[in-house]
Amino acid sequence: MSLAIAIDAMGGDHAPGVVVRGALEAARLHPDVRLILVGIEFRVREELVAAGWQASETPNLEVLHAECVIEMGDSPVEALRKKKGSSIEVATKLVRSGEAVAMVSAGNTGACVAAATILLGLLPDVRRAGIAVAFKAGERPVVVIDMGANVSSKPEHLIQYGIMASLYARSVLGIANPRVGLLNIGEEDEKGNSLTKTTHDLFQKTRLNYCRNVEGNQVFRGAVDVIVCDGFVGNIVLKVSEGLAERFMELFKSAFEAAFKDLAPALSQGSGGDRLGEKLRGVFGLLKEQLDYSEYGGAPLLGVNGVMIIAHGRSDASAITNAIRVAKRMALENVNKHITEEIRALSVSEGV
Amino acid sequence: MSLAIAIDAMGGDHAPGVVVRGALEAARLHPDVRLILVGIEFRVREELVAAGWQASETPNLEVLHAECVIEMGDSPVEALRKKKGSSIEVATKLVRSGEAVAMVSAGNTGACVAAATILLGLLPDVRRAGIAVAFKAGERPVVVIDMGANVSSKPEHLIQYGIMASLYARSVLGIANPRVGLLNIGEEDEKGNSLTKTTHDLFQKTRLNYCRNVEGNQVFRGAVDVIVCDGFVGNIVLKVSEGLAERFMELFKSAFEAAFKDLAPALSQGSGGDRLGEKLRGVFGLLKEQLDYSEYGGAPLLGVNGVMIIAHGRSDASAITNAIRVAKRMALENVNKHITEEIRALSVSEGV
Repeated sequence: MSLAIAIDAMGGDHAPGVVVRGALEAARLHPDVRLILVGIEFRVREELVAAGWQASETPNLEVLHAECVIEMGDSPVEALRKKKGSSIEVATKLVRSGEAVAMVSAGNTGACVAAATILLGLLPDVRRAGIAVAFKAGERPVVVIDMGANVSSKPEHLIQYGIMASLYARSVLGIANPRVGLLNIGEEDEKGNSLTKTTHDLFQKTRLNYCRNVEGNQVFRGAVDVIVCDGFVGNIVLKVSEGLAERFMELFKSAFEAAFKDLAPALSQGSGGDRLGEKLRGVFGLLKEQLDYSEYGGAPLLGVNGVMIIAHGRSDASAITNAIRVAKRMALENVNKHITEEIRALSVSEGV
Repeated sequence: MSLAIAIDAMGGDHAPGVVVRGALEAARLHPDVRLILVGIEFRVREELVAAGWQASETPNLEVLHAECVIEMGDSPVEALRKKKGSSIEVATKLVRSGEAVAMVSAGNTGACVAAATILLGLLPDVRRAGIAVAFKAGERPVVVIDMGANVSSKPEHLIQYGIMASLYARSVLGIANPRVGLLNIGEEDEKGNSLTKTTHDLFQKTRLNYCRNVEGNQVFRGAVDVIVCDGFVGNIVLKVSEGLAERFMELFKSAFEAAFKDLAPALSQGSGGDRLGEKLRGVFGLLKEQLDYSEYGGAPLLGVNGVMIIAHGRSDASAITNAIRVAKRMALENVNKHITEEIRALSVSEGV
């Protein structure tokens, strides 16, 4: 058993409960991987007991104590400096020392990015790390990079994002020759601000499968497999989408409750009532699934010298299980080795 | 009858049909306003006949011929230069000459912005024009500025956007003392890129009801009444929201069709079947209405020396009618006079 993955047991809105349950499931699914739950030990063990953990059944799960927790609202760099021995720091250091090949956290995103940048450092020639999030666009995933690691991007950062996310899409999501697009306000060459105009020109000189500028309404349409943008824009896109999806679900629920209240008596006369309820729940489930990006298992922070998977703060247990699966895959596929080679090739051939 | 409004009859995906019908309805609702339909005359008159226009009933509607049409896909500045006498140009010139107090177009947004900037010019001390779009956030509107007129904003542009959109929200949407927020990647003071950090500081020195940084998931939540952002970001937000709403409606429809297919026989035994269909249509209507920003009648281009309302390319007739109502209100409320005064007051007191 050579592969170990560190899991920040304290990170996320529903930690440590959901993290522990998600890790326990992952331990069952991946008996070949050692999973190290990093957190306040007695709390993690409490949750393991509650989840019915039996050490004999999943001996590949273990607990490593961390002194403290960086909360979701903490200022990232300050928290890293002041909260020594936090679960994020301890987990990241397991990756740095080589004891773990990857780490997973649903905690403070800024603190994760800062910990990775400071403790792991960047891969050779990589200028900035970027967070890559996979959404469901129809039946297939689309990867958007950067979702907020770097909010002052330069063209060369965006080019590197395109390279890194392509390799991730190919190796982890199984997309052959991923089509890359640049998020922009129009498809035509001359559209955009100075950042996107320069980047659009540069992308065409790379050996990426660069397609074109992509407008915002194409993000969920599957027109390309990888969408590149500055971290400020990406973060806004992510949160606007979340907010709108939530709002839509609320509207959907209240519209239905209002519309079907007076239909209930008619339906309850036969077996229609129960079946209607069941169907409605089914529809909710389908919509939720389509809008749920946890399926793709959290977002890798690409460009750092190690594998870090950032899961959504609101992750449930299955999202954590998926994030661990992605972490394992990224390590096994040697994504960082491929990134290093491609970035080096680009630096040599293009002078970017 | 002193008030005249020019309408680009040829602008929009469904022009001139829907524009003519929308203008005809507006002519009935606002007998005190002269409406000038600008477009290829025979085509406009054809649509008027088709819509059952009777000149005796709405004598306040008239047609003014334009030689050509700037298409949705045309490059804005180039089209303005080459297509002399286009409906956008003719309508804008009616505003410049004072014959009309406002113009409305559902046509090429870039060409509208260029025509306004070139032919009307900016209001005194205004640095950049901005497009303000009102969305429905729960029961009330939220105004987002800029939706793409200016994709290289400086802090002083954003401050002026906040002022202009506040005055618009107050005068036209009836929001007393509008709360202003800055679209950002976090609520804390130190969050954001250099543009938002500087702008956040400057906003706090104005006499606006500036509240705070607002995250993307708050756009549809009504946390503030006015949200300020750079036009690049605003355009992406608008289009991502459109794309996601469309996707959601598609998912909703197909999920329902699949789920209810086998329920249909049970329901058709009683009166439940028809009523279920009716209810489902009702729910669709409610959702569509909530996501439909045409209710607020198109987007004013704020900061230009004249009133220009840009309606969505996909506008239907009622969206055009609403846009004409907003144009009338903006003119009657002297929004541009208030903007000029407030911008001058800011320039004097703050040196912004």
